[in-house]
Amino acid sequence: MQSFESLSKQFSEKFNERHFPGQPASLYEPNEYFLRLGGKRVRPVLCLMGNELFDEINPDAWYTAIAIELFHNFTLIHDDIMDKAPLRRGMETVHSKYGESTALLAGDVMLVKAYDYLNKINSSYIHAVLDLFNRTAMEVCEGQQMDMDFEQMVKVSLDDYLKMIELKTSVALAASLQVGAILGGAGQRNQNLIYEFGKKLGMAFQVQDDYLDAFGDPKKFGKQVGGDILSNKKTFLLIQALEAGSVKNKSELQGLLNGEQENKIQKVLNIYKEAGVDGWALELKNKYLDEALKHLEDIAVLSKRKEPLKELAHFLIQREV
Amino acid sequence: MQSFESLSKQFSEKFNERHFPGQPASLYEPNEYFLRLGGKRVRPVLCLMGNELFDEINPDAWYTAIAIELFHNFTLIHDDIMDKAPLRRGMETVHSKYGESTALLAGDVMLVKAYDYLNKINSSYIHAVLDLFNRTAMEVCEGQQMDMDFEQMVKVSLDDYLKMIELKTSVALAASLQVGAILGGAGQRNQNLIYEFGKKLGMAFQVQDDYLDAFGDPKKFGKQVGGDILSNKKTFLLIQALEAGSVKNKSELQGLLNGEQENKIQKVLNIYKEAGVDGWALELKNKYLDEALKHLEDIAVLSKRKEPLKELAHFLIQREV
Repeated sequence: MQSFESLSKQFSEKFNERHFPGQPASLYEPNEYFLRLGGKRVRPVLCLMGNELFDEINPDAWYTAIAIELFHNFTLIHDDIMDKAPLRRGMETVHSKYGESTALLAGDVMLVKAYDYLNKINSSYIHAVLDLFNRTAMEVCEGQQMDMDFEQMVKVSLDDYLKMIELKTSVALAASLQVGAILGGAGQRNQNLIYEFGKKLGMAFQVQDDYLDAFGDPKKFGKQVGGDILSNKKTFLLIQALEAGSVKNKSELQGLLNGEQENKIQKVLNIYKEAGVDGWALELKNKYLDEALKHLEDIAVLSKRKEPLKELAHFLIQREV
Repeated sequence: MQSFESLSKQFSEKFNERHFPGQPASLYEPNEYFLRLGGKRVRPVLCLMGNELFDEINPDAWYTAIAIELFHNFTLIHDDIMDKAPLRRGMETVHSKYGESTALLAGDVMLVKAYDYLNKINSSYIHAVLDLFNRTAMEVCEGQQMDMDFEQMVKVSLDDYLKMIELKTSVALAASLQVGAILGGAGQRNQNLIYEFGKKLGMAFQVQDDYLDAFGDPKKFGKQVGGDILSNKKTFLLIQALEAGSVKNKSELQGLLNGEQENKIQKVLNIYKEAGVDGWALELKNKYLDEALKHLEDIAVLSKRKEPLKELAHFLIQREV
């Protein structure tokens, strides 16, 4: 059993080669540029870990891991266009650097390349892997569309927000683990359990991300604390405050959302605390983490094989924030 | 052996069903809208004809035909964004009607759906079909990128233009025929021949399209005659005139390209005629058609099986324009 760090290092070494032809450079250089920006490579390593939970890591799992990371980068390139984001990992996004049309096409060709790697799977598992991969890819697009739709809406229900996060973030983590398991010969019950483990872990991670953006230690949190509040981003905290806060909380919050305000971050944080949204978020995060770990526990393999996934879950989700 | 018309009718009936889920409607309704705009469905029918050349049409060929048409519509949705085209088949393009972000995402999900249909192929041919499909998809993107690059260039060589047309237009026709042949059990030599038939036919078609835009009968030609000339579009005619015209022709043509001019269409047409570009284009078209037919002839199946493809070639490419 190998740790996340060890597999991440091995994956990065394999992945850091050219994936595209030299010509036309105007199409392929943007993709090589974007892949060089790096990333945590969480999803492909989850695929490898899902594979190693059931068997020694096989070549098909490596191909699939590469396909998963290319797919992830395809979504980032296209999401950046839609979000008009100038920067990604501190560097210019593809559309900022090369123009929107090229970024669109570079993303397209990145997705096709992902399928090219999937087609290297020479086992009898290709249909099952493609089936899950395609379903997940459509769900990720659905999540992104819901996220864009929510931006135009005044009020979003917690249920709808949960659905959006599940589609946009969690299913990709879940599916990465499951395709690894499929290629490791896991049975359907174990596949379902590892999928649910990944899904709940993804939900816990997103709650934590929303929480840290508001209440995190600026020294430890990579991004600007309060960024979500300043941009009126719909987060777990905002949606819960508008759903469960007192009449006074809700009305004050609505006022803060509707106009430029001095000390907006501090004022919103005060309302969150009054409405008990901070404690609620920590509880929700722990609930998802516990559910994730319960699913992991239920998988029918020796406990010690599960250690790296358990460690990863605790590394990604801090009990104390 | 069935004719193009007969297969086209059958394909349209099969294809005119919903391909996407109902929700989120904001993502999937744009795709259903676009597919309802119709089209000639040339590529999927080529797949069916390539299949029937070697065997009775099998279910895998139908799935692949649907995937090919979805892929084609994916390219149209994204190309329309890049070209900022307001209309397609006389109706609003997806990005005009639903916004660019939704159009981008709708195209993405259309491509994923194409792979979903390819994954229904339950034969041992799935690797070969995916291999050709992926390669062709990348080439089509390369062609589109070259086309965009050419717009920014003052001069494009005929060789580069030929390469661009081959990638952007011809390989998709060629590959449609070949995947049909693969699924019909054709050997490698026959596969290569039908691919070359499709490629040359595509080149002949593009030469004809460029020719008709300049010299076609306005009553018979669907689009505005002279549209390419007005927009300075690089076509076979313009590139050849700038490459092979007299010094006087070239300098006059360059002047017409550089500014707004009265009677621009007529003046450019006169130069084309002086430079002999009209006759050259007709010869080039016939050369490609002859090469296409020669490849068809060489395919090792009974002549009468080839009749529908031969008829289609003569229907698409008119000897007299």
